[in-house]
Amino acid sequence: MNYASFVTSGDAPTWGVVEDGIAYDLGPTGANLAPTLRSAVEQGLFGMVGPELQNAPAYAEEAIKFLPAIPDPGKIVCVGVNYRSHQQETGREAHRTEQKAPTIFTRFADTQIGHLQPAQMPLTTSEFDYEGEMALVIGQPAFQVREADAFQYVAGYSIYNDFSVRDWQLATTQWTPGKNFPGTGGFGPYLVPATVLGDLDRLVLETRVNGEVRQKASVGDLYFTIPELIAYVTAFTKLSPGDVIVTGTPGGVGRFMTPSGLLAEGDVVEVEVTGLGTLRNTVELVH
Amino acid sequence: MNYASFVTSGDAPTWGVVEDGIAYDLGPTGANLAPTLRSAVEQGLFGMVGPELQNAPAYAEEAIKFLPAIPDPGKIVCVGVNYRSHQQETGREAHRTEQKAPTIFTRFADTQIGHLQPAQMPLTTSEFDYEGEMALVIGQPAFQVREADAFQYVAGYSIYNDFSVRDWQLATTQWTPGKNFPGTGGFGPYLVPATVLGDLDRLVLETRVNGEVRQKASVGDLYFTIPELIAYVTAFTKLSPGDVIVTGTPGGVGRFMTPSGLLAEGDVVEVEVTGLGTLRNTVELVH
Repeated sequence: MNYASFVTSGDAPTWGVVEDGIAYDLGPTGANLAPTLRSAVEQGLFGMVGPELQNAPAYAEEAIKFLPAIPDPGKIVCVGVNYRSHQQETGREAHRTEQKAPTIFTRFADTQIGHLQPAQMPLTTSEFDYEGEMALVIGQPAFQVREADAFQYVAGYSIYNDFSVRDWQLATTQWTPGKNFPGTGGFGPYLVPATVLGDLDRLVLETRVNGEVRQKASVGDLYFTIPELIAYVTAFTKLSPGDVIVTGTPGGVGRFMTPSGLLAEGDVVEVEVTGLGTLRNTVELVH
Repeated sequence: MNYASFVTSGDAPTWGVVEDGIAYDLGPTGANLAPTLRSAVEQGLFGMVGPELQNAPAYAEEAIKFLPAIPDPGKIVCVGVNYRSHQQETGREAHRTEQKAPTIFTRFADTQIGHLQPAQMPLTTSEFDYEGEMALVIGQPAFQVREADAFQYVAGYSIYNDFSVRDWQLATTQWTPGKNFPGTGGFGPYLVPATVLGDLDRLVLETRVNGEVRQKASVGDLYFTIPELIAYVTAFTKLSPGDVIVTGTPGGVGRFMTPSGLLAEGDVVEVEVTGLGTLRNTVELVH
């Protein structure tokens, strides 16, 4: 069952379930089970929807406008260089054996965009890049969680494209600016309950630019696993329902390709993960 | 005129003006001009208070519990190594001539503590440190601001102690974990309107540990100036009223002292800035 945040008409955000090309509106403009998907997660409604679908207003999936899977997370915690293949291409491979901790940076929620919304390349960059990733959404308050218990805190999974403004990311030691331009956090299309998704190791992540495969990796190749990431992050900060951990990107980002695979206006970037659908965004130059 | 966020009794947060040892309650438990100091800034009430003080409930300053100057900023943008003296002690001085951009990292709002609240040293660190800084609070929506216009966007100034968990900060290239433990962002005691504070170059920042001076610098020695910081930050992210920019710490942090000046349980850390008062926090080991 695929959950999503979306707009059916006008500007009023809502959320619901998208199945077989039909979007069922369970939010404020529909059955109104909860004001947002985040609040549905908080209230434990997520994954529990059944008969309500019968009575919810329904729309063709093509007719809705997707919002970020969770438009308003309190915290977005991103993980850097978390696949061996990306460690190698960035030259950080030498540090691998001494890498005792995940590399953590953050995004502000207002950087996010939904499926099919434009990825906004600023005029001030000459290095706009993609990073296909799997993301998880927290289901209950989580602090100092043990690895053995970590999966209990995951509500569901989604796809993230951590679009990166490389020249701003690498201007100093800290990556914050290059990861926080508006319109650079692609998130969706769906949020899929963990119970539905099943075994993570069988999932394959693939990023395509104009149809050409640029990144392909098994989620099982994550250097720090999902439980390790949850334990590490909650060792220093409290996570709440709706918070997002973006788990890292595999090798194949544009900056390290020869010749360069950086993005240009009009490029269509798709990130597909087994069982999570395909997140598609087209690059738009922001004037 | 000193503004502050505080609690007068029970747990209900409020805000007001603190003058000559008297706290006037202008928030929800008092004159109720606005629900929070952040909303007062948003509504343009900040710095405009006058006759309302006459009728507001008044308390001795000793009787209130200080909250972070702005308890709920949407964004806290911190600047690293922004005084020459701190660049030198961290060994980043060699990079100074090529430092074209400010070093930017972020804090979550839930890391913050008020004046006189304990600084929380986690059990999981052996390197707890102070960083005395001046902070500014944004007064109106700010995006792509020019340096020449930057001061128009500043509502006021305060003091920040960017307590740092060094081993977690420096475990990888990205500092996020070591800057985001709960109870590590000292912020206050007051928020002072920019119009009241006057010329920034004459301000002196001093950090003391158990009375011993550890950091002393002129705010005029900031490597990137306030207008440069505002222009740079708003080039990549939109700032809103109540958002905070923490401008960087001068030389003298504990980690680079010989012998080490790192903090221990019970240490009293004070940061004083001309015209902004003194922010005091005592280190408490969190079990």
